[in-house]
Amino acid sequence: MTLTTLIKGGLVVTAADETEADVLVEDGRIAAVVARNSTAAASLTADRTLDATDRYVIPGGVDAHTHMDFPFGGTFSSDDFETGTRAAAWGGTTTIVDFAVQTKGHALREGLDRWHAKADGRCAVDYAFHMILSDVNEGTLKEMDALVEEGVTSFKMFMAYPGVFYSDDGQILRAMQRTAANGGLTMMHAENGIAIDVLVEQALAAGRTDPRHHGEVRKALLEAEATHRAIQLARVAGSPLYVVHVSASEAVEQLAAARGMDLPVFGETCPQYLYLSTDNLAEPDFGGAKYVCSTPLRPREHQAALWRALRTDDLQVVSTDHCPFCFTGQKELGRGDFSKIPNGMPGVEHRMDLLHQAVVDGHLTRRRWIDLACTTPARMFGLHPKKGTLAPGADADIVIYDPRAEQTLSAETHHMNVDYSAYEGKRLTGRVETVLSRGEPVVERGSYSGRAGHGRYVPRGICQLLN
Amino acid sequence: MTLTTLIKGGLVVTAADETEADVLVEDGRIAAVVARNSTAAASLTADRTLDATDRYVIPGGVDAHTHMDFPFGGTFSSDDFETGTRAAAWGGTTTIVDFAVQTKGHALREGLDRWHAKADGRCAVDYAFHMILSDVNEGTLKEMDALVEEGVTSFKMFMAYPGVFYSDDGQILRAMQRTAANGGLTMMHAENGIAIDVLVEQALAAGRTDPRHHGEVRKALLEAEATHRAIQLARVAGSPLYVVHVSASEAVEQLAAARGMDLPVFGETCPQYLYLSTDNLAEPDFGGAKYVCSTPLRPREHQAALWRALRTDDLQVVSTDHCPFCFTGQKELGRGDFSKIPNGMPGVEHRMDLLHQAVVDGHLTRRRWIDLACTTPARMFGLHPKKGTLAPGADADIVIYDPRAEQTLSAETHHMNVDYSAYEGKRLTGRVETVLSRGEPVVERGSYSGRAGHGRYVPRGICQLLN
Amino acid sequence: MTLTTLIKGGLVVTAADETEADVLVEDGRIAAVVARNSTAAASLTADRTLDATDRYVIPGGVDAHTHMDFPFGGTFSSDDFETGTRAAAWGGTTTIVDFAVQTKGHALREGLDRWHAKADGRCAVDYAFHMILSDVNEGTLKEMDALVEEGVTSFKMFMAYPGVFYSDDGQILRAMQRTAANGGLTMMHAENGIAIDVLVEQALAAGRTDPRHHGEVRKALLEAEATHRAIQLARVAGSPLYVVHVSASEAVEQLAAARGMDLPVFGETCPQYLYLSTDNLAEPDFGGAKYVCSTPLRPREHQAALWRALRTDDLQVVSTDHCPFCFTGQKELGRGDFSKIPNGMPGVEHRMDLLHQAVVDGHLTRRRWIDLACTTPARMFGLHPKKGTLAPGADADIVIYDPRAEQTLSAETHHMNVDYSAYEGKRLTGRVETVLSRGEPVVERGSYSGRAGHGRYVPRGICQLLN
Amino acid sequence: MTLTTLIKGGLVVTAADETEADVLVEDGRIAAVVARNSTAAASLTADRTLDATDRYVIPGGVDAHTHMDFPFGGTFSSDDFETGTRAAAWGGTTTIVDFAVQTKGHALREGLDRWHAKADGRCAVDYAFHMILSDVNEGTLKEMDALVEEGVTSFKMFMAYPGVFYSDDGQILRAMQRTAANGGLTMMHAENGIAIDVLVEQALAAGRTDPRHHGEVRKALLEAEATHRAIQLARVAGSPLYVVHVSASEAVEQLAAARGMDLPVFGETCPQYLYLSTDNLAEPDFGGAKYVCSTPLRPREHQAALWRALRTDDLQVVSTDHCPFCFTGQKELGRGDFSKIPNGMPGVEHRMDLLHQAVVDGHLTRRRWIDLACTTPARMFGLHPKKGTLAPGADADIVIYDPRAEQTLSAETHHMNVDYSAYEGKRLTGRVETVLSRGEPVVERGSYSGRAGHGRYVPRGICQLLN
Repeated sequence: MTLTTLIKGGLVVTAADETEADVLVEDGRIAAVVARNSTAAASLTADRTLDATDRYVIPGGVDAHTHMDFPFGGTFSSDDFETGTRAAAWGGTTTIVDFAVQTKGHALREGLDRWHAKADGRCAVDYAFHMILSDVNEGTLKEMDALVEEGVTSFKMFMAYPGVFYSDDGQILRAMQRTAANGGLTMMHAENGIAIDVLVEQALAAGRTDPRHHGEVRKALLEAEATHRAIQLARVAGSPLYVVHVSASEAVEQLAAARGMDLPVFGETCPQYLYLSTDNLAEPDFGGAKYVCSTPLRPREHQAALWRALRTDDLQVVSTDHCPFCFTGQKELGRGDFSKIPNGMPGVEHRMDLLHQAVVDGHLTRRRWIDLACTTPARMFGLHPKKGTLAPGADADIVIYDPRAEQTLSAETHHMNVDYSAYEGKRLTGRVETVLSRGEPVVERGSYSGRAGHGRYVPRGICQLLN
Repeated sequence: MTLTTLIKGGLVVTAADETEADVLVEDGRIAAVVARNSTAAASLTADRTLDATDRYVIPGGVDAHTHMDFPFGGTFSSDDFETGTRAAAWGGTTTIVDFAVQTKGHALREGLDRWHAKADGRCAVDYAFHMILSDVNEGTLKEMDALVEEGVTSFKMFMAYPGVFYSDDGQILRAMQRTAANGGLTMMHAENGIAIDVLVEQALAAGRTDPRHHGEVRKALLEAEATHRAIQLARVAGSPLYVVHVSASEAVEQLAAARGMDLPVFGETCPQYLYLSTDNLAEPDFGGAKYVCSTPLRPREHQAALWRALRTDDLQVVSTDHCPFCFTGQKELGRGDFSKIPNGMPGVEHRMDLLHQAVVDGHLTRRRWIDLACTTPARMFGLHPKKGTLAPGADADIVIYDPRAEQTLSAETHHMNVDYSAYEGKRLTGRVETVLSRGEPVVERGSYSGRAGHGRYVPRGICQLLN
Repeated sequence: MTLTTLIKGGLVVTAADETEADVLVEDGRIAAVVARNSTAAASLTADRTLDATDRYVIPGGVDAHTHMDFPFGGTFSSDDFETGTRAAAWGGTTTIVDFAVQTKGHALREGLDRWHAKADGRCAVDYAFHMILSDVNEGTLKEMDALVEEGVTSFKMFMAYPGVFYSDDGQILRAMQRTAANGGLTMMHAENGIAIDVLVEQALAAGRTDPRHHGEVRKALLEAEATHRAIQLARVAGSPLYVVHVSASEAVEQLAAARGMDLPVFGETCPQYLYLSTDNLAEPDFGGAKYVCSTPLRPREHQAALWRALRTDDLQVVSTDHCPFCFTGQKELGRGDFSKIPNGMPGVEHRMDLLHQAVVDGHLTRRRWIDLACTTPARMFGLHPKKGTLAPGADADIVIYDPRAEQTLSAETHHMNVDYSAYEGKRLTGRVETVLSRGEPVVERGSYSGRAGHGRYVPRGICQLLN
Repeated sequence: MTLTTLIKGGLVVTAADETEADVLVEDGRIAAVVARNSTAAASLTADRTLDATDRYVIPGGVDAHTHMDFPFGGTFSSDDFETGTRAAAWGGTTTIVDFAVQTKGHALREGLDRWHAKADGRCAVDYAFHMILSDVNEGTLKEMDALVEEGVTSFKMFMAYPGVFYSDDGQILRAMQRTAANGGLTMMHAENGIAIDVLVEQALAAGRTDPRHHGEVRKALLEAEATHRAIQLARVAGSPLYVVHVSASEAVEQLAAARGMDLPVFGETCPQYLYLSTDNLAEPDFGGAKYVCSTPLRPREHQAALWRALRTDDLQVVSTDHCPFCFTGQKELGRGDFSKIPNGMPGVEHRMDLLHQAVVDGHLTRRRWIDLACTTPARMFGLHPKKGTLAPGADADIVIYDPRAEQTLSAETHHMNVDYSAYEGKRLTGRVETVLSRGEPVVERGSYSGRAGHGRYVPRGICQLLN
């Protein structure tokens, strides 16, 4: 594209600064950030001018944890890359990092190719991939080096889901050793799945089959245990570690202790853990199934620990773990047996807004909002400074955000391909108004102007928080 | 027996008191403790009088962790119940708790019967059994209840040795749940064996085959990890936990944290961790093999943490993990491959003396010496007040101890059936002089007067530290 | 006295053991403890036999913190040594350690002499003295050595009460250095009185004059602060430390941290902190004044931390801080100004019973009850083994305790010289039946048989918990 | 000034980003940051162009802790505002925050006026003031509100130096309560001066008079104690806290614990604590006097804890505590009595370089270097975004830094008015090349082009890290 764009009159908010400045976009990148009322500003011209008066001008969101078109429990998550990235765009997220999956007994390459095929030509915004390791062996370990080279620099393993994605501690250690050498980042689903499966079996045998028992068997102590174990294995391997979807305060304590020792250990949480709780899992008429995800929602007392950790930097990223399944036909697979409910919740559309609400509520500063939702995810996964910030030279992924607009979340109005909202009726202050992806408007003053195929694959560098 | 015995003139030292008192023994039990110089003392008469002037009169030692005639790595520990308990008697230990072993695929009962057969009629002092679980399944779980009933009230599992004794976290959780219900005590070998085996394989592949690499691959962090994991599983199960042979300061920290929360979590260490170190593992000419045991010896910096924990009650018991293998013909199996060295060290004879040396060195008080070596092991494993104390009604297992005698440890003079001493040439102050087992002298002023078959099997009650 | 006494049929409970044994008393001391049903027991005879069937036979209590006839706020505590020690006897406490007070500008000796005069010939049970330092200077420091020599081996200072008992950090450091050299034990009232007095002034100026504001201005954080400070000063001086009347969970954390480092730091709490709370301070009609003491009662959430610390040995002693003031005429001095309410509560009579109730309620074991109430206080203050245990050679201070008797506490029935009970109407299970002091009955089956003057002054040795 | 300046070709390094960008300066402020090679960059013109190829372009340093012309120990620090700010400019520091001093018995205003008089018209770079409270009373407390209003928004108190600057805990609490209400920030010199003075007296009395005893009496535990106390007082007051010149690892632990609780507690350290140690205090021939400052230099083991805390954000600021005294005539006042050595060291010139060396050495990232030395000090003390960052609209305080230049520190070449260097002979990689203050060059390619009086007083806003 060759059009230049000038965004005038807004408050530019980044993880670092809040500046009254105008932003000039050329060739899909940010060309200049110019002080308001300066001579330089007065001389700026562009093909197109967007008025951001009384608005924030912020970097587009980076959602580092999505599962589009993801196979789980005999079905697939209900958003594919087309519907999912469109919903992301609506919500001000301009980059997603999705998880390609290795099938047991098959090469990483094969899984990665399949995910490229799923995404290619269908995305509304840019995307990248992590790789899920389902089968760590000599071949897998060698492939990891190649993937890091080509821009898939993070590898997720599961301490849960024995027989499916589960890796044992030896496999985890070997993979960590490999990333210690090749620069990759280990991502960990930290729950002791071996112990949990015993509790699941016992619960079902005892007739405790409702969705709320999903929360009861996946105990906070078993998340904390696995988190501690992953940290120790990473120390032995000399590798960094990123723990996904942290929900238990006891797990946060483990991360905080590691951070206190200056270890390269990082943690992510998700809006559902900040706003929802086991109260939702107990909703009647199987309604709790809407909230079944793993790690599970926790009693609301855990929320304060998560908010605090987001402030103290013991948690560094908020992503969505977007993995929607429709209530009808999908969640219902688990009626009478909570263990058959597909694990996952919709969320990619609402992350930026829910975290802005946290600013309104006093949990976070504006700058921390941007840091958690844009900048640190980009740094964590090697996308900075192309993504995640609003600096000269960066991709012009920009959101004009109206901090005073009011909205009500609902399945009737959301754009995700799922038949319920986890936040039905929740009122929020603040709303995405306009979204640029590499300089091109994909949402303009509340109407969608993007297209499938605009979004490009972005190979990633290695984690930028390690020195 | 019907002879009465009077022990006169000594300082009676228990975990609680130091008293100038005479001790009257009737029918193999302590009948009275009488203040020196009282009228009551003056009127005491007995068939036999032992002079304990300038001596301590202490309870016989309780060694809660021995492996007589134990199969490991294709051989058997070199002490059987006859030689091993005789050496125990020489060292002032009047009760051992040995480990009966379940064979994979076989019943607990079968293993227990085999161990009864090994011990029956051969022991110099009294003995009891723990049960090693090698194969936790529905049958095993049911058998546990029966064993608790009949006096085998503690069950050891291994987080190390995959393919041999290893239990996975699900098996551990199930067994812990069972003990939570039946009153049994879970004992844990806490090392992450799955991860360690990866490091073993890598070390051997890299030609690091010497005994000292045994210490390097079995990392302190992996002991701490397993300790933490065992604690969390015990919390989930609602069961108590006893961690055997703690050697790493990082593992002690985990125990201390659990104790701080008032959890029923206990820990034992052994003299080898207090006095020996990785320096020994590095002795030349394969000499390090003498010191190969698991958990391994640690760098000497760990010793201060262990001594401190013994004082602060974050560790409660000192036992020996006596499991001797001769250097010639047994330890030598591992020349060129440290992983083939039979794991274990001799020690049953020297525990009381090495801990008395700690009193001399200022690490422990006299009372704490008795507590760690006699009283708390007895309470921990349901032998109190029959064993482990010197109170009216208790078994007359009594040691007359000369705190000023000097001795030098050596394979030439020790009584264990093993061709080396782990403490060759070490000089100690203090020595066992006379030992009564249920009132009968088994060592008298330095000569052995016991016999195989005097020692009786002692069924145990449940752990007495739980309320 | 020359009568011998035999206590038959009871369960002898000490800090260490629970034994079915008979106890023989000669010449005011315990001559023998004899196993029930032994030949030795059968041959025992005595001038007097007390039947303890279905009863506990326990050591007499040691209350290490009382203030008889104590000047405070322009008045004197309402129990003198005669009434106070008689009440102690009723409650099964056979030794008190009271506080002699140095008057500012005067010698320690002068204060100690005055307290000897107050007590001499008036006590029902044995007594000893701590010394309160009100004026640390060169003269005081020298006197401390002499006092340690003659049996006053502990010295209390106050970080609270500026202008009255307050010592500044320099004075505290100097006194601690002195005890580090002479073997004495520093006792500390740990509250930041300088900061508290600012809050008191502000509260009164704002019209917050009710008793409950006493609890609000004396903040838990300021107790924790002073506790931490005292610990650090003790570390600098190389001296042990005993913190009196710990009430805040945050202060307990400081003590626990110090214990974890194996520092010689000890803590005491009192029954009022375990059973009462700020709810009592808020009782209407100035009723809260009955509960005004310092450190103050805390919100009930703190109680769990105190109970836990008593179990984990982060607190070692329960004493009463008995310092009663009548509601009428004394407590009333503070109507309209909580800072004028004399600080202190009655309690010497009920400690043994309230802690037995804790056994009934499951907070403590029987042995820990005796440890906290008898044995450790005796060891802490150099009275062991004469006091605090039930071993041959010890003073025959013995309580026959009925664990099944029921009683209701009330000012109408108690024996302390104070017009209210802090536990009015509280029902307890367990009751003192008979009390011997040095073999002489002072309470017999619920009737008082003691006399003023029976109680003797007991010079003390140094703290016995230091190695 | 009306000249425009363009800085071309450098790597713009801020606390947040590293950007290949050109910087346009208009009217003393940053007008635009423009992506290199963009069309916008190509069209930029300016009156003056500075080539920054192969250089970093960074914000000017903010030194939040200097003492120019400061009275201490009967003398004055040897740099006045003219020489001191010139040296600051040489070292790339473009803003200092100096301490105005209240004289006991006099108003804050009077002290502030005196400091304005000292600085006015003499400074090479911009400056602001903190206020030292020497005498907290009703009048002082009221004046604090006015000072916050006019831009003196931080107030330093001393827990050390009784009789000089010392405030007691009541005064501290009152002042903290005031800042809790008026938005001011309490700064604390955290050492227990009351206890330290006892140790000083004892050391001198014992003939331990050398400079190294300065380090020995000012114990790390007494810094940790005061740090803990200050934190608790701040919690009681509900106020934020900034602890100056943290040097002991134990004090860092206190700050880390507070940060873990999400308390508004901040800490600063200084290059001398990162690079020097008690080894320097022990330099012969009274040479240790050069390094006498308070808090004192610590054994070198403490340095690792400080570096770690700078990385983990448990310490947020590095300032200099620049307070130079000449060796000859000033430091010499303390020959034979270390307590008479004026406390303080030179440093304002070398902070930026010493921290760049930390980047070279791998202790810090480049962004963290800027954060600690520029951005966070500016935010902490209400100078952001005018100072401390390189964003459009900010003051054009800019340093062109040559990261590859080599230099050797020496009193012969430094520009501070002091006859020794604390880093004599130390070799560094990296050097300031050109410095702009509000767009005006004060150092140009290594030659001084500034002037006394260019620097302006900058009133400050309140701390910007509090929400």
